[in-house]
Parts: sequence; C-alpha cells; structure tokens
Amino acid sequence: MSWLENSIMYTRGVAQGKQGETHELTTERQGKFHYTMGPYSDPVLHIQPGDRVIVETSDAFEGKIKHEHDRPSQLLRMPFLNPQNGPIMIAGAEKGDVVAVRIESILPRGENPRGTCCMIPRFGALTGTDLTAMLTDPLPEITRKIHVDEKHVHWSDRVTLPYQPHIGTLSLSPEIDSINSLTPDNHGGNMDLPDMGPGSITYLPVRSAGGRLFIGDAHACQGDGEVCGTAVEFESTTTIHVELIKNWSIDWPRLETESMLMAIGSARPLEDATRIAYCELILWLEKEYGFDRWDAYMMLSQCGKVRLGNFVDPKYSVGAAIDKKYLGPVLASSKVLS
Amino acid sequence: MSWLENSIMYTRGVAQGKQGETHELTTERQGKFHYTMGPYSDPVLHIQPGDRVIVETSDAFEGKIKHEHDRPSQLLRMPFLNPQNGPIMIAGAEKGDVVAVRIESILPRGENPRGTCCMIPRFGALTGTDLTAMLTDPLPEITRKIHVDEKHVHWSDRVTLPYQPHIGTLSLSPEIDSINSLTPDNHGGNMDLPDMGPGSITYLPVRSAGGRLFIGDAHACQGDGEVCGTAVEFESTTTIHVELIKNWSIDWPRLETESMLMAIGSARPLEDATRIAYCELILWLEKEYGFDRWDAYMMLSQCGKVRLGNFVDPKYSVGAAIDKKYLGPVLASSKVLS
Amino acid sequence: MSWLENSIMYTRGVAQGKQGETHELTTERQGKFHYTMGPYSDPVLHIQPGDRVIVETSDAFEGKIKHEHDRPSQLLRMPFLNPQNGPIMIAGAEKGDVVAVRIESILPRGENPRGTCCMIPRFGALTGTDLTAMLTDPLPEITRKIHVDEKHVHWSDRVTLPYQPHIGTLSLSPEIDSINSLTPDNHGGNMDLPDMGPGSITYLPVRSAGGRLFIGDAHACQGDGEVCGTAVEFESTTTIHVELIKNWSIDWPRLETESMLMAIGSARPLEDATRIAYCELILWLEKEYGFDRWDAYMMLSQCGKVRLGNFVDPKYSVGAAIDKKYLGPVLASSKVLS
Amino acid sequence: MSWLENSIMYTRGVAQGKQGETHELTTERQGKFHYTMGPYSDPVLHIQPGDRVIVETSDAFEGKIKHEHDRPSQLLRMPFLNPQNGPIMIAGAEKGDVVAVRIESILPRGENPRGTCCMIPRFGALTGTDLTAMLTDPLPEITRKIHVDEKHVHWSDRVTLPYQPHIGTLSLSPEIDSINSLTPDNHGGNMDLPDMGPGSITYLPVRSAGGRLFIGDAHACQGDGEVCGTAVEFESTTTIHVELIKNWSIDWPRLETESMLMAIGSARPLEDATRIAYCELILWLEKEYGFDRWDAYMMLSQCGKVRLGNFVDPKYSVGAAIDKKYLGPVLASSKVLS
Repeated sequence: MSWLENSIMYTRGVAQGKQGETHELTTERQGKFHYTMGPYSDPVLHIQPGDRVIVETSDAFEGKIKHEHDRPSQLLRMPFLNPQNGPIMIAGAEKGDVVAVRIESILPRGENPRGTCCMIPRFGALTGTDLTAMLTDPLPEITRKIHVDEKHVHWSDRVTLPYQPHIGTLSLSPEIDSINSLTPDNHGGNMDLPDMGPGSITYLPVRSAGGRLFIGDAHACQGDGEVCGTAVEFESTTTIHVELIKNWSIDWPRLETESMLMAIGSARPLEDATRIAYCELILWLEKEYGFDRWDAYMMLSQCGKVRLGNFVDPKYSVGAAIDKKYLGPVLASSKVLS
Repeated sequence: MSWLENSIMYTRGVAQGKQGETHELTTERQGKFHYTMGPYSDPVLHIQPGDRVIVETSDAFEGKIKHEHDRPSQLLRMPFLNPQNGPIMIAGAEKGDVVAVRIESILPRGENPRGTCCMIPRFGALTGTDLTAMLTDPLPEITRKIHVDEKHVHWSDRVTLPYQPHIGTLSLSPEIDSINSLTPDNHGGNMDLPDMGPGSITYLPVRSAGGRLFIGDAHACQGDGEVCGTAVEFESTTTIHVELIKNWSIDWPRLETESMLMAIGSARPLEDATRIAYCELILWLEKEYGFDRWDAYMMLSQCGKVRLGNFVDPKYSVGAAIDKKYLGPVLASSKVLS
Repeated sequence: MSWLENSIMYTRGVAQGKQGETHELTTERQGKFHYTMGPYSDPVLHIQPGDRVIVETSDAFEGKIKHEHDRPSQLLRMPFLNPQNGPIMIAGAEKGDVVAVRIESILPRGENPRGTCCMIPRFGALTGTDLTAMLTDPLPEITRKIHVDEKHVHWSDRVTLPYQPHIGTLSLSPEIDSINSLTPDNHGGNMDLPDMGPGSITYLPVRSAGGRLFIGDAHACQGDGEVCGTAVEFESTTTIHVELIKNWSIDWPRLETESMLMAIGSARPLEDATRIAYCELILWLEKEYGFDRWDAYMMLSQCGKVRLGNFVDPKYSVGAAIDKKYLGPVLASSKVLS
Repeated sequence: MSWLENSIMYTRGVAQGKQGETHELTTERQGKFHYTMGPYSDPVLHIQPGDRVIVETSDAFEGKIKHEHDRPSQLLRMPFLNPQNGPIMIAGAEKGDVVAVRIESILPRGENPRGTCCMIPRFGALTGTDLTAMLTDPLPEITRKIHVDEKHVHWSDRVTLPYQPHIGTLSLSPEIDSINSLTPDNHGGNMDLPDMGPGSITYLPVRSAGGRLFIGDAHACQGDGEVCGTAVEFESTTTIHVELIKNWSIDWPRLETESMLMAIGSARPLEDATRIAYCELILWLEKEYGFDRWDAYMMLSQCGKVRLGNFVDPKYSVGAAIDKKYLGPVLASSKVLS
C-alpha cells in the first residue's frame, strides 16, 4: 500500500483518493496568463475534488529570454513577471477549507536549450535590490541557456546537475488582496521550495469561494535559497491531482511527502519566516498528533528540519519539517474535524 | 509669500497652485469603504487637478469600538480593517506622473469620547504577532476611549497630549496588485507618519490611469513607531488639496513641509525601510538639486533626519529628511522634466 | 534652579551634585588608546564620584587621515579603530550600580581642517559590508577634510552646518567580555546618538568593580543613522562630570536631558534595537514613575520619540524617549532604592 | 584510500596527515572552564600540528541541571554559561593561518540520564528575549533529563531519536575581542551546526599567536535552528585531530566532510548570516577551484545547500554548502598558497 493512502489528502479529502476527470489546461486554453493572485480574475477551468489537471506552464520570463545575449532588463517589464496559469475553481471549496495539490509529474516542454537562468540587475540575494536599497552598482547582467532533459540539467561543460524539478509558485487566492506572482505569503505564491516536486502534496488555505488555484514557475532544479534570484526556469507540462478537505482551517501552506510533514512560512526578515514555519508545525503536532505543545517545541529543537526556499523574493520562504516516523497515528478526532 | 508658492506642488503642478472646485466626500457619498487599494474598485469621485476634497474619514475600526469594555477581537474581523475613502480619480493622471496631496486641515468628527486606542491581541511591536510568530500568550486586550478636541487629547487624568493630527493611510493604486489597507508599500498606504499632518504635501507615484486616490485612518496624535499598534484613532473631516504633476517618475512616496523634504520607505526589516528612504533622498538631491551623489550621501550622514512612522504594520515605514535650508534652488531642468 | 538639581544624577548620586576634583586625561597621560572595552586593561585614572575629567579624545581614525587624498583602506587597520580613552575607575562602583556621565562641554582640538569624514570601502548603510555580505563592488573611497569651529561645520562651499557635537562612544566594561570599540551593546559603546551632547547625562550599568569608564569618538555633528558610516570626526577636549548611583540596576544605557528621558537599545535588526529601547522605557515608567505598564505602552504609542543613532555599526543603536512634562514626580521609593 | 587523504586538512596541513602525539585534556587538567574566547586567558595545553587531543567537555549548563525539577533560572547565572575547554595553543600558528579541527569521535560521559534539554525563560526562537525584547510573559520553564547512549537519544516514551552528536561551540581566539561563549562570530564560537560531528573538519582563521583553540558544548542530537534554545546537552569525551595550514587567509569558519564543502556565517538578521555563508562559498570556488565568480553564483542558485545551525543565539549561524562532486580538482596554485 502506498503512503498516499495514508496521506492527509487521501484520508480527509472529499474524493477519498478516488481520481476523477482529467482536464487539460493548455497554453491556448489559458490564454492570458496572470501576474497577480486574487479574487478579481476570470476562471479558466472548473473542476471537482479528485480531478486531475495537466497544466502547460510558461517559464518565469514568459519565454521572452531566448538567447544568451538576451537582456532581462530590456525584455522584461515589472510587474509582468512570473506568469501564472489559472484561476482553477474547485467545486465546493469555501473559506475555512483546504485545497490539496499533489504534483504527479513535471516534464519539460519546448525545444532545447529549454532552461534559462539570469542574473537580473538589482535582483538576487547578494546585491542591493529595490528593498535592500543600496548605492552600489548592479552586478553584471548575465543570461544562461541550459539544456534540460528528464534526467539532467547540463549546467556547463564542467558541471551536470540532476533533473529535480519542482513548482516555484502555487497558491489559492487571498480573501480580498490581489498579490503579484513574485511575492509569497500565507496564501502560498512564489515560495520556491525545492520540496514541492513530483510526489509532494501541498495544502493551501481556502479564502474565497472555489479556492481559485494558480500555478506556474516550474524549476528544473534549484539550490536552497535560490541565491542568484533565478533557478533553471523552464516551460513544463505539470500534472496535478487536486483534492478538497472540508473544515480544515490552516493559516499558512503545508506540505506532505512520503517521509515528512512541513509547515511553510513567508516573511522578512528570514528569522520571521522560520518562526512562522516552526510555530505552525508545533501547533499542528499539538492539535492533530496529540503532542503536548512544549514537548513538541523541545523535540523539534532536536529533530526539526529547515528548508530555505528563497531569500530573494519580496518575502522569503522557509519550511520547517518533521520526519513522519516520529509522529505516530493522527488523532482520530482530527480526521473528522480539526 | 507663503512657502507653498515655492513648493514642488505649486511650481510643477498642472493647476499651478490655483484652487479649483471643492468636493464633499461624505460617508453617505462614500457608501461602502474599501479595505484594499487597487485597480479593481469603482470610483466614488472624479476631480480635476487643483480641486479640493472634504473627506469624512471613518476611524481605523470603522466605529465599531464604542466603549472601553468593547473587545477588538470580538468586533473586528481581519482583513476588514482600516476602511478607506476613495478611490478618487484625478483627471489626466497617468503612469509616470505624481499626484500631490496637501492636507489643509484635519478636524474631529462625532461625539466625545471620539478617540479610540486598543491593544489588540498579537498586534503591536512588543508582542508576538502573525509575522513575528511566537508561542507566548498575547498581551491583555485593552480599549481606551479618549476625549479629543481641536486642542488636546485627554489621554488620562494624569497626562494631556497636544492635538497633532495626521493621516495614517494615504495612497494611489498599485499597477496590478490590490493591497490591503494595513500594509504600506511603494504606493503609499498605511505609513503612519506623524509628519503627514495639516500643511504637509505628500507626493505619490501614479501607477494606473486616474491615479485612484485612497485616504483614511486619521490619528489625533501618534508617537514615533506607534509602538502598541494603534494611535488615537478617530473619525475626521479632512480637507485635501489635490494636484497633478506630469512626468515626474518617482518610485516611493515623498513628503514636503515648510521646512523639509522627506523620502519615505516601507519594508522589513526596519533597516531596509531606512535604506530605501535614504537612497531615495540621496538620488533626489542628485537629480533635482545638483548635489554630487557622494556629497549628498556624506552630507546626510551629518544632517539627515529620520522619522519612524510605524514598526507594527506588515511593513514598517520610515522617512528620511533634509532641512530645505541646505538645498538651495531646485535645478531649472527639473522644473520642466525630471 | 537648574533642571540639573532635579536630575536623577543629582538626586540619587553619591556626591549629591557636589563637584569634586578636576582631573586631566591628556593624550600623554592616556598613552596607549584602547580598541576594546573590557575588564582586561590597565586603568589610567582613579576618580571619586562627583569628580570631573577633562579628556583629550582622539578622532575615530586616531589622526591618521590628514589629507583628502589619504585613503582609509591604506591607513587604517581593523580592528584598531575608534581609539578610546580610559579605563577610568570610579571609587565604590560595583555590579548593580550605575555610573552617570554628564557631558559639560565638547570643544574642538587641533588645527583646521580638524574634521574628517570618510566613505570607507564596504562600510556604511547603503553598501554591502562584512555583515550584509554582497558581491557588489564597493562604493568609491572618499575623504573629506572639514573646517570645524565652535559655531559651525563648514561642510562645503554650498552648505554650512551648525556645530552640534556629541560623544559617539561611551561605555563601562562588560562583566567578562572585551568588546571592540566599533560595537555598541548593553554596556554602551559606539552608540553614535546625537543626543549625547553637552548638557546630557548618560547612565551606564556597572558590571565590574570600578565600572571602568571608556570614552572617545567625538563628532562635530551627525545626522540620524550616520548613513555613510562616519560623522564629522574630530579630536576634542571633552569635559565630563562623573557620578555614582548605588543600587540602581539597569540592563541598558539611559540618557537624560533637560526635557526628556531616553532608553537606548543596540541590536540587529533595527526593529530589535527599537524594541529594546521601548521596552526599557516602559518598564522604567512603570517601576519609577508609577505608570501602569499597559498605560505606559499605549501612551508611548501616542507621544514616544525615537532617535536613530546609527544603522552602520555591527549593532544598530536607537533611543526611545518621553518628554519629562508627561512624567510627574519620581516615586519616592525609587529615590532610595529602585 | 580514504577521502581524508584528499582533504584540505591532509593535503595542505603542516603535518601532512601524519598523526602526532595524543593529549588528554581531562576536566581536572582543564580546571577552570572559560566563558569567553579571547586572547586574555592562560593556556591549558600546548600541542604540535598533527596532534590529537581527547577532551572531556562539560555540558552547556556545567552539570548544574541534574533533575527535571531543577530550574535553570535559579541555577544558572549569565554570562557564566556554555563552559569551554581550552585555550589550546598550536605551535607555529600565526595570524593569516588556519587551524583545522577534525572531530574523530564524540562519546557520552557521566551517568544516565546524561542528556539535558531546557526551556529557559526569555531564551529560544519563539519567545521574546533580551534582544527581541517584548512585554509578553516568558514561556514555561521546563527541564528534561534524557537517557543518551551511543546509539540513541531516548526523548520520550513516544519518540526515540538517533544519536547524532556534534560540537556546538568551537573557535580560535579573536584578535583583541574576548567574546562570550554564547555568541558565534567570524572566529567560530557557538555555531550549533549539526554538521560539525564526527568525521567533519572545521577550518578556523588564526587571529593571534598559537591560535588559542576553545571547544565545548557537545550535543547528542539537534534539529535545524535549535528552536527551543537548547539541544540534548551532555558531557562528552571528544577526540579531535588538530592541524595547521600556513598562509591560508579566511574570514569566516569553513567545514569539510566526505561529501561537501561548507562556508559558515553568523549574524543577525538571518539573511545576513546566509549572505555571508554564500558569499564566502562563492569566493572560495572562484579562488581555489577555478570557477568564474558569476558562474559559481548562478550554479549555487541551482545546487547550493543551506543548513540552519541556530537562530536562538546572540548571532544566528548558517552554513552554505556544495557537493564536492561538482568541484573537480583543487587548483594547483591554491595547494601552495591561496
């Protein structure tokens, strides 16, 4: 029996793990991409809990960076970056619920060199930016085009990296805000967590009717923190399996894999993102796994794992995780109502 | 001759200091208040550059906190806080322009005790919050109702403070985001700068057609940083004089008074807000007042003034200022086109 | 009657405001300057509470920057910067006491141009530094030599600033640490607070026998935040009046002037420095001025004043202050024992 | 052939991997432990490069917390925490060199329950502290005594954790500062990096003659960030192999294991610690492994690994690492002189 059958998604979801219809959200069907996630845009797809969606995602530059001599500063225009597919409406989703998104697969699209990595002026962790404002000159503007296949990322003549894709940006809509697709927050968004790859399940809080799911920004691989500001950005065909969990009220996104549970926080400074992630994880262990709050706090001080998603976006994202083997069974009560 | 006649607003504005029509934006005319500033809401008023608007602002709690035994946690619901009047459309305003808002007066409305100050659970600078997440208990929930007149704020039997009102929240719309009214950013918003009182002129960057001006959140007085999270919040009748400056491209709000020029930054951590403010001020002195960049940097290290607006909102706001007497005349070129 | 007679220094000090002997701490008597403040150095002077000391301070560069073509990167060597006079031993000072330092006067020494301001590579608020590490190039290295007299600081042909001197670095010794003179902390140190000028009284916590007073780093003027990293640094003759207050246990430095009381915090990020300053001020008002803790917190949200000392040193310094007129009389009990 | 023979320690060290004498630094020989790392203390041992030392470390509480009803606030007194063995003098070490410390083994000492974990009032990541000052009440004060053996940490009836020990505090002396043992900085110190376990090699910059090695603070296991403020603290017998690398000038500590190279930064806010770590790693790849600087920056954006040591100490510690398989051979030139 797969771990999936014991996952929160399968045990608490409306469709109970049954897979429904499969939809295709091609770039044609998507039409105009979105640069904000909010309640003000028109849905492109309506699905049922349990349905699958095959999404053709654009890359973070909407395909505008084609050659190594292309300059992001000339071809990109803020805030029209990081184009998102969606919004996808999930039937029955209401404020106070959770939408679960399992990533089944992420495959490369388009012709090689499909991957793009850029040093964009005044963007990245080791340069002055619009928020960490400085009088220093920008770093050089550099574009790398990278051969990507389903096994490898051919970084350079010297270095070949494994193909370990993930989705950089995944969210439902905030309740009333409409947030640009560069900024992660408690609705999800541009978290850039390498854990959000095939096999993972992300749990997102529903804040408006239908949830309004947005997805985009696939990365062929990414280091912790995405230090230069961009990953190996590429167009993908990403297949997701979407579920609805009723009456699960969470404040921040969460993530489950075969081996771990993770809570995700996004904030500045970076310690605040980490504080959010750990607080959420502790309260989760208390509420749904029967740990005393202080026992959980002290235990995570011995076995908690921290993943730095990015420290380059307008808010930084951090996941705090625990190995499932330390959890024991979920509380019976939380299967019904948490 | 008043300093106003030499202000940027008067010398560079479309209406050249001539006052136009006076509009009344009563609570009735406003109807529904707004909790986000963005391009997706319906205008309540269209005005010409040079027009005046008499605005009846609500208080930050929309009048729901009436007695000292009222509990914010029971009466307020996030994110429906800090109600804003607007949007007001300014004829001719386009992306790349600036809208200038001079505050003529801020007068108290409603019956005494008109002022409200609350300690709201998990809000304020000296408690764990949703962003600086902690496992500590919240501070006590306390409401103070305060007698406010046009001279004084009667804080307690022991302490009477001067009536020194300002507007806590003032903004145009972002280009595509719609930002909740609690969060300041480069569009303006909940900056809580005590300098934004009667006589001050705030310059805001236009990002969408008509500018879309929002205003609200009057404070009868406020300390630097708004440490407990709220000021003496009150309903006001605020009169503003609105101008349009064409082709003045600025990235962050700016402020002018009789004696100083100020640039305003909003970010976390607090040093980043301060960096933004000082960077903007230095580049302003270079571009429009003929200072060498490094001379301006080193000179402000000797005479710059910093005002902490708030360090309690989702982003913190800081103003960096220089006394006008050190500026000399504006460059002729920048009167025409900066 | 001067406000001084009602100051904490005069009402609670061992010498009760009586002035004792006057000592001269010339550069000759000082001999070797110190670059750390700690318990491991040899005293240069022993004084009684109430004594005055006339100190010849060096400038922050120990006089090595003589001409505008001098390069700090060639002439200065970390960590041998910001030379300090002292340690001065105060008779009777023990852990749990406070040493009060009133600055009587700060006069320029040496020949003009006496003042020095430098842009030092990778130092300052608007550049990458050793702590905010970046891959950007350093800003240009620039030295300014400035004519300073007792009235004015002749910044440039264009700008003349008032002579408003203060002491940048003032401290007692930590208990066991020896901290370099660039870093402020709860022992005092390189706070760079413009309020620490003639007329002010600084209260410092005693952590080791004799207190071990260090002083240096006079500034002819300085803007809030000392944004480029240096003020108008100069050699001074600074006269201080030193008192001892027994059994006053404080965690961070405090400051008194004719009109205000201030608590000072030093930390990163800047919000933490500000939190410390406000927390200390609130607890002070509660303990010694009879305010309810939450009343003080909410009141300072209406009338607190924040001064940014520096945001360029290894820790940033902030003062939070209240106008004395809001305080009323000190509690009788705290005059004896707080 | 072991990876060790190709390690930096073995290929560049004075002793060339030859093991010298073995010394015992028992608690008796240590005598008084140290609470600061600096140049002002008396050596307890003089060794040659290549020598081994078997160190009996105390726990972070110096053994004072014996029972679960013991209260840290009553038994511990700041700043006399985190006792350190040393200083150990390494013959020939001079400013501009590096001392390499390979941890051969960390074994538990003393009787069970040997492990101690405490929630100490106003210490930890999810509570107000002396630096993140708040008016909130402290969290409960809790002591856990834990059975630790060479295989397991018996956390609770419910959870058993693997024994994965590391050294929490390791440093040479700063040049002139003497820094308390709670604070990590560029000299090393209380970094709390779980990677610093048996098999690892830590490279520390020499700043004073002999290096002056301090070591202590063994942890039986620790989660990323050490969120509650303490790990499973225990007394250990730790065996180290010490080498000297001449003329290797590094600014911050570095770490090598069989599979990776890591640079370590310590600062606040947490993004600055991470910036330091990544900057150091990039410049290291450029200088000694022949990568172009921007290639290294962009490549680490795809494959860099970040480990959060602690975000509870006065400075936070972060390691940024790269898998050695991406490095290729070290530059011939850097074997001789970097």
